[in-house]
Amino acid sequence: MRLASTVDARLHAVVRDRLVDLTDALGISVEVAGSGAGGPLLAFLERGGTLAELAALPLYGLPTRPLDGARLAAPIARPGKVVGAPVNYLDHKAEMGEQRTIAEYGVFLKASSSVIGPDGAIRLPYTDVRTDQEGELAVVIGRTASRVAAADALDHVLGYAPVLDITVRSTEDRSTRKSFDTFTPFGPWITTADEVGDAGDLELRCWVGGELRQRVSTKELIFDVAELVAYTSHVMTLYPGDVIATGTPAGVGPISAGQRVVVEIDRLGRLDIPVTDDGAIPYGSRPGAR
Amino acid sequence: MRLASTVDARLHAVVRDRLVDLTDALGISVEVAGSGAGGPLLAFLERGGTLAELAALPLYGLPTRPLDGARLAAPIARPGKVVGAPVNYLDHKAEMGEQRTIAEYGVFLKASSSVIGPDGAIRLPYTDVRTDQEGELAVVIGRTASRVAAADALDHVLGYAPVLDITVRSTEDRSTRKSFDTFTPFGPWITTADEVGDAGDLELRCWVGGELRQRVSTKELIFDVAELVAYTSHVMTLYPGDVIATGTPAGVGPISAGQRVVVEIDRLGRLDIPVTDDGAIPYGSRPGAR
Repeated sequence: MRLASTVDARLHAVVRDRLVDLTDALGISVEVAGSGAGGPLLAFLERGGTLAELAALPLYGLPTRPLDGARLAAPIARPGKVVGAPVNYLDHKAEMGEQRTIAEYGVFLKASSSVIGPDGAIRLPYTDVRTDQEGELAVVIGRTASRVAAADALDHVLGYAPVLDITVRSTEDRSTRKSFDTFTPFGPWITTADEVGDAGDLELRCWVGGELRQRVSTKELIFDVAELVAYTSHVMTLYPGDVIATGTPAGVGPISAGQRVVVEIDRLGRLDIPVTDDGAIPYGSRPGAR
Repeated sequence: MRLASTVDARLHAVVRDRLVDLTDALGISVEVAGSGAGGPLLAFLERGGTLAELAALPLYGLPTRPLDGARLAAPIARPGKVVGAPVNYLDHKAEMGEQRTIAEYGVFLKASSSVIGPDGAIRLPYTDVRTDQEGELAVVIGRTASRVAAADALDHVLGYAPVLDITVRSTEDRSTRKSFDTFTPFGPWITTADEVGDAGDLELRCWVGGELRQRVSTKELIFDVAELVAYTSHVMTLYPGDVIATGTPAGVGPISAGQRVVVEIDRLGRLDIPVTDDGAIPYGSRPGAR
């Protein structure tokens, strides 16, 4: 199943070129889904909803509307956690001149407030500091995971989606450089794990301004999905709706206003986001500059 | 007002030696407060509750119980964000041999799943890697803050509380080293900004195993509260219930099982947390070890 949220806080299955509205059939309160701003899928997961419950839901007779023209939000608007995986492809390690990988770095965190959906735009924070695209595979947690073994880790995955980890190249901690508002475009929807099958050999492609910059198979991951979920759950309990961006391959580079950043992954869809410099300021005029 | 949450997801004012139960008077649903696991204060803030609404609430006639013996939870069990401030006291910069401060590092993020309250215990993750205490002043956001100026920043603060930023000393990103479950003891309650007055000259004291390790005034902060809120809001929108740990002074050191870690701040109360090594493993046997 492909799970899409719309900006009016409703949850849908994407079936060919239609959105099938699951909100009422699953008993999701649009009021609750809209209030905490997590969105309808997080409201469903937090009331104990499962992949099995979704799979058992008869879609026949539910209200539908065309996918074309629908305003999609991020599948989860404000996840409990957005975890990132630094240096998790060997080719990216080489391009960054890194000596270490995720095995030494562990994971980092992005602010949940940085998430946007297909309807959003990346806003560059600074007029004079390089900001890069990083196209990645996102894993969405469906069942609480604490200290799970790699052999069991995939049982805790709800599904997968394309994600962009937008990053400023400056001196700050990763959490700062990667957490500006709009820096985590996510979507267009979540494809559930049962429909994806093996996430260990999906091709990921990322374009900036029409130029293909990144192309890799997820089989090149240093920590594959199972090991990454297991490792992360050893550090921090993962709750339903938490998102793990699995890391970026080689081909990271600067983005600029007016360009579009596109990330597409086999079987998971295509996310196409514009870049703007509305509100950008010189780095030296940020609060706290010394 | 001093705002305390109990483990049964109810919100209270602490008045001398009594807890005055605000839950029903504020129309907080215990079901909602318990489900998303943010707790009753976050449920209140997310439905638009304000400091003014709290201040206007007549306490007379509300149900009370003794503070002594009550099981207090973290004032906010799972904040939307937990922001940390690296190297924000000059004496800590010196003890760590750091060349840079928060002005170059920016802020980092801790996992919201690492928060515990006065009823919790710090669990050491590794048998053979040093884990340190860092006693800090926490700022709790009451009103959404995006790109606010330092001069306006304090208008967005709900209140203050003691917090511990527990940290493993190893090679990983700060977010990993500081995000293990139980690594953010927080409480015992939030003292609202109107009652604290000037947070710029509070004495903070931190003991480990009865030994006084940290003693500082918040006037020694490099980014004071207003500048820290302004800087953080320049990077990421701060939402009600988000927590900023303002950084630790000199005196950081190892903690071990059986000890108690105590952090006390003038006017804000005292947080007293035991340390255990239940479940600790050798570092070399963590998932993903190469």
